[in-house]
Amino acid sequence: MAELKSKPTPLYKEVYDYILNRIVREEWQEHDKLPSVRDLANTLSVHRLTVFKAYQLLKDDGKVYVRDKSGYFVQGHAETREFSSLFEKKSRLSEIHRIPVTYQFSQALIDPNLLPNHYFSAYVKKVFDLYPKVLGTYSTIQGDEELRATLAGYFFKRHGLDLSADELLITSGAQQAIHLIAQLLIKPRDIVLLERPSYSAAIEIFRSQGAKIIPVDITKEGYDLVQVEAYMKAYKPVLFYVNPTFQNPTGYTVPAHQRKALVELAEKYRCVLVEDDTYFDIYFEKEPPAPIFKYDSEGMVVYIRSFSKYIAPGLRIAAIVCRQPLMNHLLTAKSLTDNGSPLLNQKIFLHYFTSARMQQHLEKLRIALSIRKEILESELKNTGWEWTSPDGGLNLWIKIPTSLDTNELLSKVLENSISFVPGIIFDPLNELQSYIRLSYSFINEQQLREGRGSSLIFQKIILDSK
Amino acid sequence: MAELKSKPTPLYKEVYDYILNRIVREEWQEHDKLPSVRDLANTLSVHRLTVFKAYQLLKDDGKVYVRDKSGYFVQGHAETREFSSLFEKKSRLSEIHRIPVTYQFSQALIDPNLLPNHYFSAYVKKVFDLYPKVLGTYSTIQGDEELRATLAGYFFKRHGLDLSADELLITSGAQQAIHLIAQLLIKPRDIVLLERPSYSAAIEIFRSQGAKIIPVDITKEGYDLVQVEAYMKAYKPVLFYVNPTFQNPTGYTVPAHQRKALVELAEKYRCVLVEDDTYFDIYFEKEPPAPIFKYDSEGMVVYIRSFSKYIAPGLRIAAIVCRQPLMNHLLTAKSLTDNGSPLLNQKIFLHYFTSARMQQHLEKLRIALSIRKEILESELKNTGWEWTSPDGGLNLWIKIPTSLDTNELLSKVLENSISFVPGIIFDPLNELQSYIRLSYSFINEQQLREGRGSSLIFQKIILDSK
Repeated sequence: MAELKSKPTPLYKEVYDYILNRIVREEWQEHDKLPSVRDLANTLSVHRLTVFKAYQLLKDDGKVYVRDKSGYFVQGHAETREFSSLFEKKSRLSEIHRIPVTYQFSQALIDPNLLPNHYFSAYVKKVFDLYPKVLGTYSTIQGDEELRATLAGYFFKRHGLDLSADELLITSGAQQAIHLIAQLLIKPRDIVLLERPSYSAAIEIFRSQGAKIIPVDITKEGYDLVQVEAYMKAYKPVLFYVNPTFQNPTGYTVPAHQRKALVELAEKYRCVLVEDDTYFDIYFEKEPPAPIFKYDSEGMVVYIRSFSKYIAPGLRIAAIVCRQPLMNHLLTAKSLTDNGSPLLNQKIFLHYFTSARMQQHLEKLRIALSIRKEILESELKNTGWEWTSPDGGLNLWIKIPTSLDTNELLSKVLENSISFVPGIIFDPLNELQSYIRLSYSFINEQQLREGRGSSLIFQKIILDSK
Repeated sequence: MAELKSKPTPLYKEVYDYILNRIVREEWQEHDKLPSVRDLANTLSVHRLTVFKAYQLLKDDGKVYVRDKSGYFVQGHAETREFSSLFEKKSRLSEIHRIPVTYQFSQALIDPNLLPNHYFSAYVKKVFDLYPKVLGTYSTIQGDEELRATLAGYFFKRHGLDLSADELLITSGAQQAIHLIAQLLIKPRDIVLLERPSYSAAIEIFRSQGAKIIPVDITKEGYDLVQVEAYMKAYKPVLFYVNPTFQNPTGYTVPAHQRKALVELAEKYRCVLVEDDTYFDIYFEKEPPAPIFKYDSEGMVVYIRSFSKYIAPGLRIAAIVCRQPLMNHLLTAKSLTDNGSPLLNQKIFLHYFTSARMQQHLEKLRIALSIRKEILESELKNTGWEWTSPDGGLNLWIKIPTSLDTNELLSKVLENSISFVPGIIFDPLNELQSYIRLSYSFINEQQLREGRGSSLIFQKIILDSK
């Protein structure tokens, strides 16, 4: 046993641990003055330089601070709290998005050239004519009543949902909606069910609220409802966050019969279903199944619909639809968060939404996106890569050979001004190593045809680097 | 001792407590099926109707629920959590604001007729000409870089602050700024110092994060710094939220020498100062002292400046100014909350802010508000009511005779289409019964001269009701 000898801990590290242990045990509390270098050296029978080195290291690690010449003090909680580790993924993703590349497959955003920008420039003037004081006025916390009434009417016509304007809350984008719901429903250590893979921002939001995440696999057939029921029974989750229509990142759609069954499970086990329906309108052939919310009869489904994403993402308009008493609690959370979304954005959106232009725009957008999808798919065919061709949404979810390391692949393609998102970013378990997400919504047809998103260029890059 | 006999607890209430205790102790856990009425009646040797009554009461109180015909079940955490009690004050205040009245002294908002609405209507078109794709684009999380650079330049010119654009974060209003900071810095049971009285939304935000609030009295001379130091030493607060310039609701301004001393205390006791400077620009004669942030050298001050309030409140633009590492943590919080404020609003604001028009508007606004203040003060003179005439801001903070009940007074004046805010709403201790806040910023000169905000009408109302 003597052969496998570990390197001995350096003495200053032992002193470091000695001090840190006492801070953690709160024997030495925040902002307490710590023993002087001289005193601690005497107490521990070590050299003063050893203690000094330990204190310097604790200072570098943000555990203690120095005040003038009066010595070392225990750092306050506010400064020692470890925020950063929570958000590693987020910074990974936003780092990828920040790198300027020509061939942008990483952002699930619509190419601004597909949006009615010029029309809006002229149009907004009309909004100011209609509401000359729109900038002088706050919106109500719940959102502009005219907009809510219009959306309630739309939901009735489109999905047969029987809603009053009071059952809608306007938020600044779908992400704020998820954040409000998470703040409201989750206490630290609560269990949350999440699809695997799932929207990366949602994973981070639920984690930041202290939730424990149990993943539910999503496949092209939907969920394994036996598994979902077993989890609901065993773990008593507070909520199940689902993105059942052209899911991000997979593009899968949960079939209608599962939607109904899911609501029954949610009601049976009192588990709130948070239905994020961001991609509903981006279908290529036939309309997707009606929202899960439609099957709700006991107020167990909270429905999030994002609107501005396909029209004018800069407006940041989404809606939460739910029943009482949840809506009242969400209103309180919204009032504390920002006291209501800006009125101007709501009015601009409202008047575009009710225009004939809006339907024409969506129809054109669907065609443009389905063409882009087809070009990308044809570029990728004749390879060993596997994916399910989505019927809507903005992404291809691709299984690549296990021999490729997605992180290594990413750094290689970035050098060639190409970006994508490694699948692991969407995995609550941090394991999906052999998947990548390629978005076809931001890059234009010309660029797609250049073949920079094809397996050929990817494989060439890999070969070149060997 | 037999004489002071308390009323006996009714039997069904004992059964209620018996069940509730077992739920609280988690002997019966959420969604567990509870014993049937018959079984529990047998166990406790009481009549079945008594058990039934207890269950009904538990159901009314949201502690248990009924499923079909299968009996009673323990309610899930999500439903039993007591949100409402946290936010009582908020609903009080927003309730007051919701009542439509002609003589509006309750809202500390600028009369829309004092805002450059018509100018904006024409102006926004120009913004679209400059940035034709502004609606097709998201802002960065931190906010538009052009706007941040402009504001950094402004802060240098105005206050001599040496800032880079990276030390500013654009938020959707000052309230979102406070909420982000509270989310970041406060863990449940942390101690927070708050001025007494203080901005009511701030009280609610800090409470909602689980903070324990220690009030620091604010007077026209500022704070008792001996008291502040004693509190910082004894309670080790995470932060002190201050509104030192034309404070809401009092209108008091903390003098320059106290600002410097406060930063020294904050640094000594590692207590973050959150400086809400919403009212800085609304001075009537001379400019107020420089922000507390100016004295900061160790990154212990977080500065919030609200801009759109006086220009176009519908835009919802404020900025947080602070140093690293705090800024990075705030960016993470902002990214989770809404992924960045809408770009359009930032661009509209930017181009107005840099125009000559902006300074002219502020000068005119200051004059208009000081005239309104003077009219209200002259209406109130010759009474026993006491207040300190503010040098800026939007409110009079008035001490009324202790014989008047402010809540009763409020309901009487509401009947006369007049509103104000009872001082107790601004008190973290819920005690200030003899103060009211009258805002002179929303009501116009004509209405002010009608004397509906005068003590005469108030006293007449009181007399009439006797």
